[in-house]
Amino acid sequence: MKHTYQYPRAALTVDCVVFGFDGGDLQVLLIRRAIPPFKDHWALPGGFVRVEETLDEAARRELVEETGLKDVFLEQLYTFGTIDRDPRERVVSIAYYALVKPADHTTAASTDAAEARWYPITGIPPLAFDHATILDIALKRLRGKLTYQPVGFELLPAKFTLTQLQRLYEAVLGTEIDKRNFRKKVLSFDLLIPLKEQLRDGPHRPAQLFRFDPVKYERLKKKGFLFEI
Amino acid sequence: MKHTYQYPRAALTVDCVVFGFDGGDLQVLLIRRAIPPFKDHWALPGGFVRVEETLDEAARRELVEETGLKDVFLEQLYTFGTIDRDPRERVVSIAYYALVKPADHTTAASTDAAEARWYPITGIPPLAFDHATILDIALKRLRGKLTYQPVGFELLPAKFTLTQLQRLYEAVLGTEIDKRNFRKKVLSFDLLIPLKEQLRDGPHRPAQLFRFDPVKYERLKKKGFLFEI
Repeated sequence: MKHTYQYPRAALTVDCVVFGFDGGDLQVLLIRRAIPPFKDHWALPGGFVRVEETLDEAARRELVEETGLKDVFLEQLYTFGTIDRDPRERVVSIAYYALVKPADHTTAASTDAAEARWYPITGIPPLAFDHATILDIALKRLRGKLTYQPVGFELLPAKFTLTQLQRLYEAVLGTEIDKRNFRKKVLSFDLLIPLKEQLRDGPHRPAQLFRFDPVKYERLKKKGFLFEI
Repeated sequence: MKHTYQYPRAALTVDCVVFGFDGGDLQVLLIRRAIPPFKDHWALPGGFVRVEETLDEAARRELVEETGLKDVFLEQLYTFGTIDRDPRERVVSIAYYALVKPADHTTAASTDAAEARWYPITGIPPLAFDHATILDIALKRLRGKLTYQPVGFELLPAKFTLTQLQRLYEAVLGTEIDKRNFRKKVLSFDLLIPLKEQLRDGPHRPAQLFRFDPVKYERLKKKGFLFEI
C-alpha cells in the first residue's frame, strides 16, 4: 500500500528571471507568449516541470528552449503558490534567477515563446500571471546579493574597468554613487586584480582593466562582508 | 481548450525546520513518523500540500497538526526536487524554517506524528528522506541571517541579558565568542533598549535586562549592516 497524496494535484512550473547588463541599464530577458493563457503577452521564460527531471534541469531546459541561453549562473529564488496565480488551474511555480554576461546575450526563441527580447528594468511591459511580483522579488534578491557578495561580476565581461563596475552597481541599486567613495570601497576589499591591459574607448583617457579574484572572494565570504556604498 | 500539463505529476509537500533555543543549545523540533515510509524514524514536521491551500498555509497547518505550534516566525527556505528523495514517487518539497521563542516551546503531537521532541543541533538522530540536507541548509540560512539581521531575537524571550544573547550566537554559529568584543559590537548597533529590571539568576550578580528595538532595526536594515563577531 502506498501512503501518498491523491489527486487533484497542483501542476508545477519553473520561471526564470534573467538579468543582463548592457553597460548602461540593468536588463531583463522576456518572452512573448505564443499560446494561451496570456497569448501575445510578455512573460518570464519558463514552463512545466517534467516528472522525470529535477527543478534545476527544468529551469535550464526552459531557458534553452525559450531563449537559447546555456551555461548561465542560475540560482533558485523562491516558490510561488498563491491559489489563483494561473487562470487554468492550481499551478505552483519555482522561480529562479539567472545572471548573464554580455558576451552570452542572445534572443533566440522557440517552442512556447514567439519572441525573446531584453528590456531595461526601468521599462518593463505588463507581464503575464504574477510575473511582475516574481521580478520584483528577484530584483530585491539581486540588490541584497550585491551588498553581501560580489555577484555583480557575473554580469560583467571577464575584464572590466572600475567605471563599468560602478555603472553596474548604480543600475542595480537604482541610485547614483559617489565615484571616489566607490573606488575606495571596492579596492579596500582587495578582490580585483589589475591587468596590464587598458581599455581604450572613444576620446577618453585609457582606463585600467581589472579581473575578479575568486580565491580571495572565497576567503572573504567565510568571515562575511558588507559592500556598503 | 485548456493548455496545461498533463499527468503524471509530482506530489507537493512542505517540510519545516523549527529552531528553538533553551539557553544553552540550539534546538530542532523533530517528529517521529507514525506511518510509512520511514515509519518510527525521526523527521522534520511537514506533509502534503492541499490543492486549495497556499504553501504558507500548508506549512502552518502541518506545524499545528504535528507539533501544536502556532503563530511562529516562519519563512520559506528552499524547494527540494531531486528525483528519488521519496521512495513512494516523485515528491517536491517546499521547505520552511521557523524560529520559536522559549515560552512557545511545546511538544504536542497528533495525526501523522507519533511523537514530537526537541533535539540539540549537536545530537540530531538519523533523519528520514533528505531531511538531514534540508536541516543543513536551514542552519546555514540561520547563520547567514544572524550575520546580516538580528533575527536571533526571535529565539530569545522578550527580555534578555547580554549573556543570553551571546550564548545564542555561540550556539548558532557553533563557536566561542570573546565577551568584550561581543558586547562592544552588540551595543554599537544601538538595537537594544536597556530595561529597568534586572535578572537575578542563582548566585551571580544581577544582570541588566534588554529588549530589542524593532524601529531602529528597520532603519538599520535599509542601509545594510554586518554583525561581524
